[in-house]
Amino acid sequence: MDLKGLEAVAKTIRALSIDAIEKANSGHPGLPMGCAEIGAYLFGEVLNINPKDTSWFGRDRFILSAGHGSMLLYSLMHLAGYEDVTIDEIKKFRQLKSKTPGHPEYGWTDGVETSTGPLGQGFANSVGMAIAGKRHAARFNKEGFELFSGRIFTLVGDGDLMEGISYEAGSIAGHLALNNLIAIYDSNRISIEGPVDITLSESVRKRFEAFNWHVIDVDGHSLDSIKRGFDEAEIARIKHNRPVLIIADTIIGKGSPNKEDSNTCHGAPLGKDELEKTKKNLGITSDFFVDPAAVDYFGKKMAEKRNKYDSWKSMFNEWKGKYPELNELFNKNFARDIDASAFQNLPAFAPNSMHSTREASNKVLNAICKDIDFVVSGSADLACSTMTVIKESGDISSKNFLAHNIQYGVREHAMGAIANGLYLYGGVLPIVGTFLSFVNYMRPTLRMAALMRIPTIFLYSHDSIYVGEDGPSHHPIEHISELRLIPNMNVMRPCDPEETKIAWELALTSKHTPSTIITTRQKVRTLDYSKLESYTNAKRGGYILKRESKKDKIDMIFIATGSEVSLVLDVAEKLESEGYSIRVVNMFSTYLFDHESAEYRESVLPSNIEKRVAVEAGVSMTWYKYVGLKGDVIGIDKFGISGKAEDVGVFFKFTNEDVYNRVKIVLNK
Amino acid sequence: MDLKGLEAVAKTIRALSIDAIEKANSGHPGLPMGCAEIGAYLFGEVLNINPKDTSWFGRDRFILSAGHGSMLLYSLMHLAGYEDVTIDEIKKFRQLKSKTPGHPEYGWTDGVETSTGPLGQGFANSVGMAIAGKRHAARFNKEGFELFSGRIFTLVGDGDLMEGISYEAGSIAGHLALNNLIAIYDSNRISIEGPVDITLSESVRKRFEAFNWHVIDVDGHSLDSIKRGFDEAEIARIKHNRPVLIIADTIIGKGSPNKEDSNTCHGAPLGKDELEKTKKNLGITSDFFVDPAAVDYFGKKMAEKRNKYDSWKSMFNEWKGKYPELNELFNKNFARDIDASAFQNLPAFAPNSMHSTREASNKVLNAICKDIDFVVSGSADLACSTMTVIKESGDISSKNFLAHNIQYGVREHAMGAIANGLYLYGGVLPIVGTFLSFVNYMRPTLRMAALMRIPTIFLYSHDSIYVGEDGPSHHPIEHISELRLIPNMNVMRPCDPEETKIAWELALTSKHTPSTIITTRQKVRTLDYSKLESYTNAKRGGYILKRESKKDKIDMIFIATGSEVSLVLDVAEKLESEGYSIRVVNMFSTYLFDHESAEYRESVLPSNIEKRVAVEAGVSMTWYKYVGLKGDVIGIDKFGISGKAEDVGVFFKFTNEDVYNRVKIVLNK
Repeated sequence: MDLKGLEAVAKTIRALSIDAIEKANSGHPGLPMGCAEIGAYLFGEVLNINPKDTSWFGRDRFILSAGHGSMLLYSLMHLAGYEDVTIDEIKKFRQLKSKTPGHPEYGWTDGVETSTGPLGQGFANSVGMAIAGKRHAARFNKEGFELFSGRIFTLVGDGDLMEGISYEAGSIAGHLALNNLIAIYDSNRISIEGPVDITLSESVRKRFEAFNWHVIDVDGHSLDSIKRGFDEAEIARIKHNRPVLIIADTIIGKGSPNKEDSNTCHGAPLGKDELEKTKKNLGITSDFFVDPAAVDYFGKKMAEKRNKYDSWKSMFNEWKGKYPELNELFNKNFARDIDASAFQNLPAFAPNSMHSTREASNKVLNAICKDIDFVVSGSADLACSTMTVIKESGDISSKNFLAHNIQYGVREHAMGAIANGLYLYGGVLPIVGTFLSFVNYMRPTLRMAALMRIPTIFLYSHDSIYVGEDGPSHHPIEHISELRLIPNMNVMRPCDPEETKIAWELALTSKHTPSTIITTRQKVRTLDYSKLESYTNAKRGGYILKRESKKDKIDMIFIATGSEVSLVLDVAEKLESEGYSIRVVNMFSTYLFDHESAEYRESVLPSNIEKRVAVEAGVSMTWYKYVGLKGDVIGIDKFGISGKAEDVGVFFKFTNEDVYNRVKIVLNK
Repeated sequence: MDLKGLEAVAKTIRALSIDAIEKANSGHPGLPMGCAEIGAYLFGEVLNINPKDTSWFGRDRFILSAGHGSMLLYSLMHLAGYEDVTIDEIKKFRQLKSKTPGHPEYGWTDGVETSTGPLGQGFANSVGMAIAGKRHAARFNKEGFELFSGRIFTLVGDGDLMEGISYEAGSIAGHLALNNLIAIYDSNRISIEGPVDITLSESVRKRFEAFNWHVIDVDGHSLDSIKRGFDEAEIARIKHNRPVLIIADTIIGKGSPNKEDSNTCHGAPLGKDELEKTKKNLGITSDFFVDPAAVDYFGKKMAEKRNKYDSWKSMFNEWKGKYPELNELFNKNFARDIDASAFQNLPAFAPNSMHSTREASNKVLNAICKDIDFVVSGSADLACSTMTVIKESGDISSKNFLAHNIQYGVREHAMGAIANGLYLYGGVLPIVGTFLSFVNYMRPTLRMAALMRIPTIFLYSHDSIYVGEDGPSHHPIEHISELRLIPNMNVMRPCDPEETKIAWELALTSKHTPSTIITTRQKVRTLDYSKLESYTNAKRGGYILKRESKKDKIDMIFIATGSEVSLVLDVAEKLESEGYSIRVVNMFSTYLFDHESAEYRESVLPSNIEKRVAVEAGVSMTWYKYVGLKGDVIGIDKFGISGKAEDVGVFFKFTNEDVYNRVKIVLNK
């Protein structure tokens, strides 16, 4: 261990962090200063990385779950030679369009493994990455060819560990014995509001031991102690087959004479005066100081890492020659492309046959995925209800990572973040599902997927009041509309088994947009497309499902989604029999429709037709975008009620007769 | 202990549960059957309750957090004599409008303490109730007058304990040493998907010990063991000053010969055949069987409880006479009425002065609440940023429950549910706050408040891209619109300090609708109302803030909220100077506006004026309800970006000039 080199790195982290934050007049100096030694040791002595090949499959991952400490990461990435993080970009910390945004952003700064900031997300992403790593190791490693020996390191703060998601994810990690996961807890006993003991009395050690982790204590400012900790972690994770938590006793803002060990340095610049005192205290003689000894140290270390990388590449090349079939699978998995042929010859559903779309969804999913290794589906203890199961594969367990299903337990929030982590690791396309009403438990993870532009697939069943007996807490009302409001989220609500096929095709082939597929609990009628327009137009989001009977005359446009489509078709038929000319538009996905051209949208919803009625068993507010001030929305703007699904439907006036009567008012206006 | 009586109660629970569920053809027999002995003992031997006075302040509370086991609760409520739960209602289990809905619903069935079903909520509600109980005890108990000695009992299942919220809440409960809280863990090792060990390996005992709880193991089917457990709990909670967890080793579905101890009895009726076998096995000879011995037992027990209740009443009356001032405070707290005078003489904010609405909010809150004991405010480690603090009061701690603030730690989800519990207990009006972007972490709790019709106050600051440097994960985009979709949720986004007063008045006086107050991080201009309509119209939700200059001619209606109101007023002024007649509508709360009469709404937004532009720094979709197909929405339909707030505003074209240019297009159409 090059003690002098590491100390120079720690000094550089502190110097860059405090200057960048001061210049931005915004940021969190406490963490980078408090974790400077840990960061130096981790990046210098531990991580197997290659900044010139940031998508190297065999690398170690580092996740800064406490994303507000971003200057720790940027300082280290700069020293390690990540091309995006130049000294000029560090000087533009937190400025518009710089490569050094306030929190680390995946897809924006090359080398950042995931976007962090909302606490606990990064930790749970790490658990997902660790599962992916274990799965690939089980699939592709061969004796003498440890392609996937990469470890996942994550740095968490008190805030991460107070969030419920970190308990859920920690419990799963212990359950699955993820011995490729090493979390470092920056235990500085300070949060934004003051000493952590105003809110936290629990024993973090005991808690992680309860989860079956191996726990190690280190002095976070002693490089000797840190070395012993990481050495022990490396041995213990293999010996005990457990994830490891290193509790690092640190001092927040260490180096600041008057602000260290207090919440004053957590989330605000040190201030000119204290900045000068800190620099003097640390022997920093210039602005944005980079210690030449740190540069030397990283020069040597990165050369060593480069050699390891080259060895890995040689091993990989040898492996390719020796296992050509595995290599083919490897390439398929990491490309995550599904051949168009997989969407052919899917199960047939007879016109007018009755199926729930959750059931149809499962049949379609299984038909598509039967030969696809990289799809991993799972649920939060509702696999049999939401029907997420990929059959004949079993569940991933600590003893078998080669299955297609994960049992997440009743842990929706961790499930979503683990799915995002599975995707980010590479080689896995995750699907996660539960009841739609429980999407509320995992909302941050949908947003993070959309923000990171990763195509995680979220599957929600039991999509409306037709859940019936379970009552209002289980009846989605606002949920579908809410999800449609998330930027870059494709929410699809298929109306029948055929349209469900389109939903899966779009979800499984999406590259930068997460998908939400919404299915029914109850049976719905498979439409008879011989009498309608083709459902393949669902790919455009909103489409004419039934054309008006009269040429050049539309008396009204009906807009519906999901289980309400067949209802609307029935009413339209009755109205047609009375002589009205009615168009029915299936608004399968507002996201896709809104991304179509103005011309296409006009062709579906001509602006001169103001008589429009939207029907969805959920809140009405969002539908005025499509029906305007002169249209009507038949929705549900109050909470549900427990009862048989049919009775509840009657209660909320979602019968053919009720809809017919409402529509007649519009027609007679 | 009357063993025979208790056994008859347990038998009756099983009999009623399986028949009710079979008749409904829907429900969860596993829990009531598995917890029949525990339930019998708890209701018979432990709980101090009076079914004839369900709002008795001194009662013990029982929360069935595992709400799907509702037949356990209904069976016991029936035996105990709660008037809503007749045998006829039990026969109508899960039917439309019955008093026995699928999950227990607060406000629907008298005696149900909180709505449960979404897992973990009830447990966290219990923690809030326990805090309220401790606070009242500290305030009102006097030597010899233990008015508030009531305990909170909650029954949780594996699912509750896997949810992150239960870890957060459990950690807080231990931190605050809530020794009036006793949780019973129905440890049956079975979840919906199968044995719990497919997903859970953690030691629940160790975990709760890590949280500083006292943990007791009992055999859940041995009444002797259950008695010992409850006896120990009663001693230990006082001796060790800790909350208590009783881990009850149970057999799910106990009594069903072929389905007990398996997931087949978790969430579905037993089925005709197994029902018969179970009845035979248990010696149940009729449908909806109520054992006369159980009736006798409860007859005796309820008489004892009635005596205790009468003694409490006498004590209370004596206390009233002895402490008339405390009694006055008691009445005030439990009425939770704030005198109209409290909203007079609030801080003045000079026209055109600059303040963030979060800062104004805090000043107003403190001015209103300075003499109000029942308001308890708190934040998830962002009190100083969101400005939730009620000054000169300090924080609630294990040693002092008489403060006005709670430090929840970084535990948003538990915070929301604890707030709901604080309200449900009575005598407390809770306020909880964090950054708006983190509302996603606590979404289920807002919904539960709205569903239960309780006026919990949610305060969210940092409401838009103007958060600036923290970047996209911290920039609310979809959040405000999303919250507006929740039925019975009044979302208010004040435009300046004056309107912030209205928000607080409405929130603090609401009786059945939770409020969400949305505030800015950045300073906004206090409007000069001498030139505008009065802000007091904000009580109607949407109102004319600036009238069009020309009589009988409106060229355009501007609609805006929050920080965008002053922007829109500036643009309107410029347009007026060019000769346009522009109306500006402040849509402070769509909830309130939508509940106004059609006439009022027409007077604000006349339907013949189709040129309308809504401006809000968030998603556009919901605004079409107010601008229609021919209007325009200036919103933000993508994620934010890290940078100085001003730069981010320019980036998203939220400048006067940009808005002016967009509006000119509408005007020139």
